Amino acid sequence: MSTFGDYFRVTTYGESHCRSVGCIVDGCPPGMQLTEDDIQPQMTRRRPGQSALTTPRNEKDKVEIQSGTEFGVTLGTPIGLVVRNEDQRPKDYGGQTMDLYPRPSHADFTYLEKYGVKASSGGGRSSARETIGRVAAGAIAEKYLSLAHGVEIVAFVTSVGSEHLFPPTVEHPTPSTNPDFLALISKITRKQVDSFVPVRCPEAGATERMTKVIEKFRDASDSIGGTVTCVIRNCPIGLGEPCFDKLEASLAHAMLSIPATKGFEIGSGFGGCEVPGSTHNDPFVKAPVIDANGKKTNRSKLVTKTNNSGGIQGGISNGQDIYFRVAFKPPATIGQAQQTATYDAEEGTLEAKGRHDPCVVPRAVPIVEAMSALVVIDALMAQQARETARSLLPPLKTTLPTKETGTSATPEKIAKHLNGTAS
Amino acid sequence: MSTFGDYFRVTTYGESHCRSVGCIVDGCPPGMQLTEDDIQPQMTRRRPGQSALTTPRNEKDKVEIQSGTEFGVTLGTPIGLVVRNEDQRPKDYGGQTMDLYPRPSHADFTYLEKYGVKASSGGGRSSARETIGRVAAGAIAEKYLSLAHGVEIVAFVTSVGSEHLFPPTVEHPTPSTNPDFLALISKITRKQVDSFVPVRCPEAGATERMTKVIEKFRDASDSIGGTVTCVIRNCPIGLGEPCFDKLEASLAHAMLSIPATKGFEIGSGFGGCEVPGSTHNDPFVKAPVIDANGKKTNRSKLVTKTNNSGGIQGGISNGQDIYFRVAFKPPATIGQAQQTATYDAEEGTLEAKGRHDPCVVPRAVPIVEAMSALVVIDALMAQQARETARSLLPPLKTTLPTKETGTSATPEKIAKHLNGTAS
Amino acid sequence: MSTFGDYFRVTTYGESHCRSVGCIVDGCPPGMQLTEDDIQPQMTRRRPGQSALTTPRNEKDKVEIQSGTEFGVTLGTPIGLVVRNEDQRPKDYGGQTMDLYPRPSHADFTYLEKYGVKASSGGGRSSARETIGRVAAGAIAEKYLSLAHGVEIVAFVTSVGSEHLFPPTVEHPTPSTNPDFLALISKITRKQVDSFVPVRCPEAGATERMTKVIEKFRDASDSIGGTVTCVIRNCPIGLGEPCFDKLEASLAHAMLSIPATKGFEIGSGFGGCEVPGSTHNDPFVKAPVIDANGKKTNRSKLVTKTNNSGGIQGGISNGQDIYFRVAFKPPATIGQAQQTATYDAEEGTLEAKGRHDPCVVPRAVPIVEAMSALVVIDALMAQQARETARSLLPPLKTTLPTKETGTSATPEKIAKHLNGTAS
Amino acid sequence: MSTFGDYFRVTTYGESHCRSVGCIVDGCPPGMQLTEDDIQPQMTRRRPGQSALTTPRNEKDKVEIQSGTEFGVTLGTPIGLVVRNEDQRPKDYGGQTMDLYPRPSHADFTYLEKYGVKASSGGGRSSARETIGRVAAGAIAEKYLSLAHGVEIVAFVTSVGSEHLFPPTVEHPTPSTNPDFLALISKITRKQVDSFVPVRCPEAGATERMTKVIEKFRDASDSIGGTVTCVIRNCPIGLGEPCFDKLEASLAHAMLSIPATKGFEIGSGFGGCEVPGSTHNDPFVKAPVIDANGKKTNRSKLVTKTNNSGGIQGGISNGQDIYFRVAFKPPATIGQAQQTATYDAEEGTLEAKGRHDPCVVPRAVPIVEAMSALVVIDALMAQQARETARSLLPPLKTTLPTKETGTSATPEKIAKHLNGTAS
Repeated sequence: MSTFGDYFRVTTYGESHCRSVGCIVDGCPPGMQLTEDDIQPQMTRRRPGQSALTTPRNEKDKVEIQSGTEFGVTLGTPIGLVVRNEDQRPKDYGGQTMDLYPRPSHADFTYLEKYGVKASSGGGRSSARETIGRVAAGAIAEKYLSLAHGVEIVAFVTSVGSEHLFPPTVEHPTPSTNPDFLALISKITRKQVDSFVPVRCPEAGATERMTKVIEKFRDASDSIGGTVTCVIRNCPIGLGEPCFDKLEASLAHAMLSIPATKGFEIGSGFGGCEVPGSTHNDPFVKAPVIDANGKKTNRSKLVTKTNNSGGIQGGISNGQDIYFRVAFKPPATIGQAQQTATYDAEEGTLEAKGRHDPCVVPRAVPIVEAMSALVVIDALMAQQARETARSLLPPLKTTLPTKETGTSATPEKIAKHLNGTAS
Repeated sequence: MSTFGDYFRVTTYGESHCRSVGCIVDGCPPGMQLTEDDIQPQMTRRRPGQSALTTPRNEKDKVEIQSGTEFGVTLGTPIGLVVRNEDQRPKDYGGQTMDLYPRPSHADFTYLEKYGVKASSGGGRSSARETIGRVAAGAIAEKYLSLAHGVEIVAFVTSVGSEHLFPPTVEHPTPSTNPDFLALISKITRKQVDSFVPVRCPEAGATERMTKVIEKFRDASDSIGGTVTCVIRNCPIGLGEPCFDKLEASLAHAMLSIPATKGFEIGSGFGGCEVPGSTHNDPFVKAPVIDANGKKTNRSKLVTKTNNSGGIQGGISNGQDIYFRVAFKPPATIGQAQQTATYDAEEGTLEAKGRHDPCVVPRAVPIVEAMSALVVIDALMAQQARETARSLLPPLKTTLPTKETGTSATPEKIAKHLNGTAS
Repeated sequence: MSTFGDYFRVTTYGESHCRSVGCIVDGCPPGMQLTEDDIQPQMTRRRPGQSALTTPRNEKDKVEIQSGTEFGVTLGTPIGLVVRNEDQRPKDYGGQTMDLYPRPSHADFTYLEKYGVKASSGGGRSSARETIGRVAAGAIAEKYLSLAHGVEIVAFVTSVGSEHLFPPTVEHPTPSTNPDFLALISKITRKQVDSFVPVRCPEAGATERMTKVIEKFRDASDSIGGTVTCVIRNCPIGLGEPCFDKLEASLAHAMLSIPATKGFEIGSGFGGCEVPGSTHNDPFVKAPVIDANGKKTNRSKLVTKTNNSGGIQGGISNGQDIYFRVAFKPPATIGQAQQTATYDAEEGTLEAKGRHDPCVVPRAVPIVEAMSALVVIDALMAQQARETARSLLPPLKTTLPTKETGTSATPEKIAKHLNGTAS
Repeated sequence: MSTFGDYFRVTTYGESHCRSVGCIVDGCPPGMQLTEDDIQPQMTRRRPGQSALTTPRNEKDKVEIQSGTEFGVTLGTPIGLVVRNEDQRPKDYGGQTMDLYPRPSHADFTYLEKYGVKASSGGGRSSARETIGRVAAGAIAEKYLSLAHGVEIVAFVTSVGSEHLFPPTVEHPTPSTNPDFLALISKITRKQVDSFVPVRCPEAGATERMTKVIEKFRDASDSIGGTVTCVIRNCPIGLGEPCFDKLEASLAHAMLSIPATKGFEIGSGFGGCEVPGSTHNDPFVKAPVIDANGKKTNRSKLVTKTNNSGGIQGGISNGQDIYFRVAFKPPATIGQAQQTATYDAEEGTLEAKGRHDPCVVPRAVPIVEAMSALVVIDALMAQQARETARSLLPPLKTTLPTKETGTSATPEKIAKHLNGTAS
């Protein structure tokens, strides 16, 4: 289905060439100031046509709030969001050739098999325009997370083709053990990321190398993949449901739901498989009283000294930076002629018309951020329901390990206590 | 929550030291022969204590069906499954030291922060015993998938530490372009996998090298990670919901919900980011009339020549082998002394008692298979509801692209047709 | 949340004075011809201003399909539906008096308590305009049900105030034992219902008496309630999930979610409590080979002789007419001055401005039909998933009671069979 | 599916003759003291065999907590609950006659049609034993609601056959306008209800009359229906989701999911349709500072003077007593011979063996209470998530109507304010 989240629930609609695309955001907390101005910036960052490296199709993508706010304040009721499709009828795509061929590694074949019918032009529902609703909803979630918890979510490009910002080394098979990487994610801002146009890799040399890779593939009418890394800072402790809905499982689900993704890794990730447990484990140390901004912190008594876990342990956020990496394959639509077969299984050559994105990672950045925000806010509201429910119970008389006591009881102490003999 | 799936819905319960662990499987198709004998084999494969390399704790894990079958046939009603915990009270774990310290990179700290209380001994709900219910439910799903669609799911170990079965090379940055890999996954069976004890990597040389790695870490009271690769053969075409619930998104969710996982990649995965689109795209060719087993195939007119997609395009299965890889970190519980802090933030040294698994990947194999089955059956039933619904509609009079026609209509033809002038 | 259904899922948005109201319909079967013309008729039937008895506010309520169809055929993707609010800003409602008072028995007080903020004018989300999305979605569901299964859903008014079409008598404490009632519901059509304007009670005398009741209350600036009865004909057998999601439970949920409803009864209902079991039980008889329209029937070997069950037994449809009755209270907004208190708990008098509906039941008719359709299609798709799943299993070798054998096995026969000695 | 609730989620399993019946309760707040002793009393109240009027089948129904608690305190993890079936194999039911006939108005026919197979004996999943899991889960919910919010839930019998505790009169077409009724529900306790054995109607004369009705039907090997009324006191304000999941819609869903129910009405119910709006509306008055128990109240500034709404307005609880009535049909299984047809559509006579309950309402009382508790706790946790989320937002600078200001703003004031000129 086209629904994401249980508490902050987003339902999207729209194909490449229908009247509009959009979504309904249900469960947004009431009493938050919200206008289109809070949403438009991420819509614009998602838009193609921002540089010579991305597709020149010029979409305006102006979002209009339909409902759920009054006088710029959320009412707690569903927020309808609509973005008109300016280009509502097939043009470039309608040519006879493309109609006969399912595009290799695109969704044409599988959509037809799945539904028995398919949109006759463009990607239909598999178009990248489907992500518009996600980015709009994500911007609302982000505003709440920022206002209520100071959460900061920043994504950036970490590789294009074989050019990596933090290539694996013998010393650091995973960037999670690399202090430079940890320093970067602790401070990076969206503004900094956007200053490295058009690639959005926050390091001048790497951006330059990646730009060259993209240009090379663009010039060859070919395409190339890359990775996006995302950090979530100030995430409240305790988010994520043990068992099936671990926080990393929800993040993986969210990320692999973005078109063209092929992989996800949290914290040390695949490289972490090669690190000994004695190094990989994140020991606890006393939490600093003053944080990096000079503000008093009182989130928990403990922080971890290292962060190979990527801010999540046992499926639950531990208060450290959450970071993960997402793999995007080379775009399927390329200008080169491709030997393939028609729907009727006749061999032939397909040549795509129009100009296409040789690499999607720069545009994927705000989509990764949006999906991250949707995951965090949903887990947050689940946890808030639980914490509030617990807070209304009478205090326990036993000496069970509790959040308040901060220590663990021995069975003997508990047995004594339950017999009424505890002091 | 502890529920997985919408159509074939599994709800699990249980901690490390409570009366029993188990699950309820709701939505299992009625009329299928099912007894404990169908479930026990995977339970046994999951069990620790199968070799000198895995933890010697001897658990029997006998599953008992409580409901939902009569005379060995499923009724379509919820199937209750119970496995008694033989070891219902803390022993090794209850020592004073371990009570004072949250174990590094374990779930002790986050559970306490999340719930405000925690089980006083063992991993509680974060224990690996939580996976028992998954494996039992997965075995039921697998039986259905096998009977109704001939689906085969086989997982195996592809790396331990830095020892890989298919290490990335310049030629093959991803195994998806490696014919040896594709040949292996097209035929590998569970029986073959299990013949490579204790590591379950289906190649004698690699198994030997991996065994040595595990022994080295075991002897050092340390631990090491690894990866498991899984293939799903004969998956029906058309599974997976576009947008948020793409088949790979559901698989990623399922895999990252397994304890100790850090990454997931489908098809070409992270390595695929480095492959040009012109190589990465999977062109279509006419489907063979006879399959590898000499049986007639009529699933679709088209198959793909290569399979970098990993059997999923646009979030929907395309009939090719689905394969993916899962990263497991080194186990957090190690015998070595660790410098860390108590719940009260006092520095100290934690030494774990008992013997612990130096590497979880061999035991993870059946868990990966179980979660795969749960994903596939849920997507399958969603698709069956849709296909059946569609099949009851009157045939379309237009020449829209349909599954039956196999070709695409031009707007002109459709317009003509709707005006009643089509031939 | 604002979502209804799991398989055919409707999510609505919109308040009384925002830009638009509408919904997203997710899960509609692909390959169905669908345009706005299929939806508009029920929208128009729902509209106020159709007669002197209903509110004169003139709303146009033109529905626009945003997505999910192409060339008039459903794609299987989410269908976005939008109806613009022509009256987007407060007018009548904005007066100072109404701002100070929560309207008695309206949602003003509870919305403010729930959300902490509320729309400053009109009913906000509690406005009857919220039902627009339901009616639009219901029209799509109805089209499918009609095309694929010949389902017919017709609702009509059965009482206004104390004027009843079938008042309870000693002989018939419930209409379910009254042959006149059963004859009516077996044939009544929407066209017939609409010919009894403005009350929509399909009997001339009753309509006249009810009209007088409504006029009396209108003239007194007062309001009055009534009941709507609905019949679902040709509902497939086997719909409804045992236990929590019995078909009548889903219908009750759907009906009590309509604004101003106070009660629901299925089949014999409350009156059925007074009928002896020996009369109330519906015995089975052989199903007729030819139905009322002269068409061959082969849905099942059995029908029931009476239908006190209202077409549902054990929570599952049995193929007989499903019928139920819904109670609507007198509208809360009345012209009379009311002694009440302000938000600040100061006593005072509230006089509502504008003209208001003295009785909602005539307008409620299409809403009841729409919600019925949404319940049936969701239960249908759940059952289709199950039936299809079962149909792909190998046939059972035992003589367990099955749908095909139509008879029940004795334990002896089954035991014999499982020992391989059955003939 | 067999799942109820989104936040406090109950999944049940079990048939009449399988190993055990039970449920998993997921989402129970952590840190609550809970043992079997909290659950058993309602299990025992549900048990048959408590008097000569109910079925003599003697079930022990001892509940065992499997997981989710330690040392008698909830961990926040799923609570597994198991009740063994002592009678695990068919006895009375296995006779040849009953195997051949689907019992009239029972679930035999529809289960077979739905699933294609059915349990060969007893009611299978449609057995009343299915309600055991509900009652166990409800007892846990009730404990939380009582501890955290002082919620009190009491159900009692209000009619058997045509004997009513509050029969409709011209003056009071609905008990909601009857002060005696309102006085009763404001104070009635379970202890009082249980003192009126065996009928559980809290008035001596009515109980006597109802007892005679039941005895008459029992002696005639016939059965009779009745109604149960339930009151929920001290329900927090603000529960219930507008639109589809109104609190009364969830209650209706819950009640109609109980076996043998035919109707539900909230507040004034069906009788309220006959009451003029000017009488039916519940005007607001200042809330008393001291409640009936002499305790200070500060839940809200306003209460309603009358309570025809039944404690819910616009789908949301308003703090007044929530009360509703549920109709139970006469039990389908009766001792009398019934003319009906076999599965193979052959006419014949069915005579049920064993002794059966002539009237279910006394036993239904704890089931109605349990389902009420499950509805309230789920709505409560949804609202807690929202309220907590809102409370963490910065205060609004506008003068929009808010819960805190308690008054409504005019558009002029808001416009002025947003321009920064408001005082």
